[in-house]
Amino acid sequence: MPWRGTFSKKVFNNPAMDLSQLGEFGLISRLQSLLKYRSSQVIKGIGDDCAVLSLNNGNYQVLTTDALVETVHFSLKSHTPEQLGWKTMAVNISDIAAMGGEPKFAVISIGIPKSLPVDFLDRFYKGLNQASVKYKVALIGGDTVASPKHLFINLALLGETRKKKVFVRSGARPGDKIFVTGTLGDSALGLKILESPRKKWKGSDALRKKLIQKHLRPEPRVEVANWLAKSKFKVTSMIDISDGLTQDLGHILKAGKVGADLSESSLPISKPLLKYSLINGLSALDLALSGGEDYELLFTLDSEDVISLGTESITKVDQPVTQVGVITAKKGIRLISKTGRSKALQRSMGFNHFKGKT
Amino acid sequence: MPWRGTFSKKVFNNPAMDLSQLGEFGLISRLQSLLKYRSSQVIKGIGDDCAVLSLNNGNYQVLTTDALVETVHFSLKSHTPEQLGWKTMAVNISDIAAMGGEPKFAVISIGIPKSLPVDFLDRFYKGLNQASVKYKVALIGGDTVASPKHLFINLALLGETRKKKVFVRSGARPGDKIFVTGTLGDSALGLKILESPRKKWKGSDALRKKLIQKHLRPEPRVEVANWLAKSKFKVTSMIDISDGLTQDLGHILKAGKVGADLSESSLPISKPLLKYSLINGLSALDLALSGGEDYELLFTLDSEDVISLGTESITKVDQPVTQVGVITAKKGIRLISKTGRSKALQRSMGFNHFKGKT
Repeated sequence: MPWRGTFSKKVFNNPAMDLSQLGEFGLISRLQSLLKYRSSQVIKGIGDDCAVLSLNNGNYQVLTTDALVETVHFSLKSHTPEQLGWKTMAVNISDIAAMGGEPKFAVISIGIPKSLPVDFLDRFYKGLNQASVKYKVALIGGDTVASPKHLFINLALLGETRKKKVFVRSGARPGDKIFVTGTLGDSALGLKILESPRKKWKGSDALRKKLIQKHLRPEPRVEVANWLAKSKFKVTSMIDISDGLTQDLGHILKAGKVGADLSESSLPISKPLLKYSLINGLSALDLALSGGEDYELLFTLDSEDVISLGTESITKVDQPVTQVGVITAKKGIRLISKTGRSKALQRSMGFNHFKGKT
Repeated sequence: MPWRGTFSKKVFNNPAMDLSQLGEFGLISRLQSLLKYRSSQVIKGIGDDCAVLSLNNGNYQVLTTDALVETVHFSLKSHTPEQLGWKTMAVNISDIAAMGGEPKFAVISIGIPKSLPVDFLDRFYKGLNQASVKYKVALIGGDTVASPKHLFINLALLGETRKKKVFVRSGARPGDKIFVTGTLGDSALGLKILESPRKKWKGSDALRKKLIQKHLRPEPRVEVANWLAKSKFKVTSMIDISDGLTQDLGHILKAGKVGADLSESSLPISKPLLKYSLINGLSALDLALSGGEDYELLFTLDSEDVISLGTESITKVDQPVTQVGVITAKKGIRLISKTGRSKALQRSMGFNHFKGKT
């Protein structure tokens, strides 16, 4: 959100639109330049996970919106309506978490095609409700419209952050440590499994299920973000990982005009991902670096107190966080191997690489 | 918004969904019952033009969302991208106005099909920008996504109202006077003209242009609403007319558990509408009663001071308002003819009746 473009290649490779050269971020900044009205209550506009507003009550408000489109973002073959409902809420909540905020109020639009199965909406709402109760989001309105062919869903979500603890993308400085919550790449592999014929990959059903679950039912890290906002730790930047570690780290680096060294051996890779990759000859490293839809938090810390961060994250919010690298003055991202060799990573890795949304 | 359903018949006549029996409002209330989380900061949730939030700063916040879908809500043949941009902003602003609020911050989602013309988005944003500058709305973020076939647009808009002057649908009491701003039916006839072959209707180009303009470039009545919020006049209920006078008045009547007598001779019908209807054998009355997308305000007043309202609306905000009827204890809507005869109106008139969105 403001703006995260999730164009698939078929839009950007469309020569008629000439967007392939412009790219999605080029498009966003061009469109933004066409808007002339400015408000002094906007603390942070386009260009972060949420916009930040000041409504004079001591806190900031954060506002985000995300659209999910059938065939582009999800398939009704691989997602149950309940899972889709959960995910619709979860991906927006993740944007609020990435600002250090608490989600509060949501409005939803649903474009409903003729072909939708009978009980779809009820089941979709059950999923919405689960996330709404868990994360304390009041869904307070919306717009239900007909759609000529494909289902689409849009959620807009308003949240709140402390004034002094709003985490934005900019702010990372050389020497800051880079952290992620949870593990990386599981969701991307889960999607790969969902979209492939059963026989293509080896591995137990239990293993498959764990990976698929991470894709279908992401858990936004609100609790971690709020704990960090209240903690002594100096978070200098934050983003949620929706398009893959490399790409989303790229946003932080671009905003802070810095670079990063990532430590290959430090990347948090789950046992299911490691095992499944090994059996099937896939690169767990590539998945961890570039797989999308992790919905983990990526943040930088101006602190030497790495050990106490790791301990408190377990004791206070029961959520492992892992240092994966360090911010450098030198631009670009380098992957440092176990033997100390340094390899430059392409920022363009991630998103389309594994998700195959085209 | 919260919830205005704009389903076309093709969804509600779809037996597989069994929505034809349920109806759009039945659906909305069934879905609402599935959501269990409640927040004490929600002053007004689903069921009005906007949801109303209290963020502890002395004012209320109002939040609304509206989706526009190609082929359902607009055709790229009849709307220029600029007009569509304006309208996207205007229809949401109209919902904020209908609460007595001022629009403040917007986030937009755009689903972009491959087939979109080269400069569409730039031109669309020019239209957005015009409305954004005129109505002081800061567009602060969004989501640009690919759409497999049709263009869709969703805007979510956050505004602010005074705590003691938030206008909701409920509150009309027997004896209250019913008012509308501007004139009624022009937009519906404008759409009719846009969608018909040139030769079908008689009438000058100037006449056609005026009617079409009202459809393509609605002016939300923010100024009137804010003037009323600051005035001595006791507004007891308000809604914007998006689905036609009869249908939107129906929402006010249902919310207040009251009925209404409408005076046929008082309905504000523009000269272009009257003239064009006369030439072409159309019923200006039907268009005024049931035509959609007027985006005028409909409100009720607990006051005898009708003359001073009419005068002040001209002198203070340069906008005619007209008394069109009176709230009754007896349910239903009756149209009182010039000769004093009373005829019951069907609430189901309006929306699909003229707009032919199916």
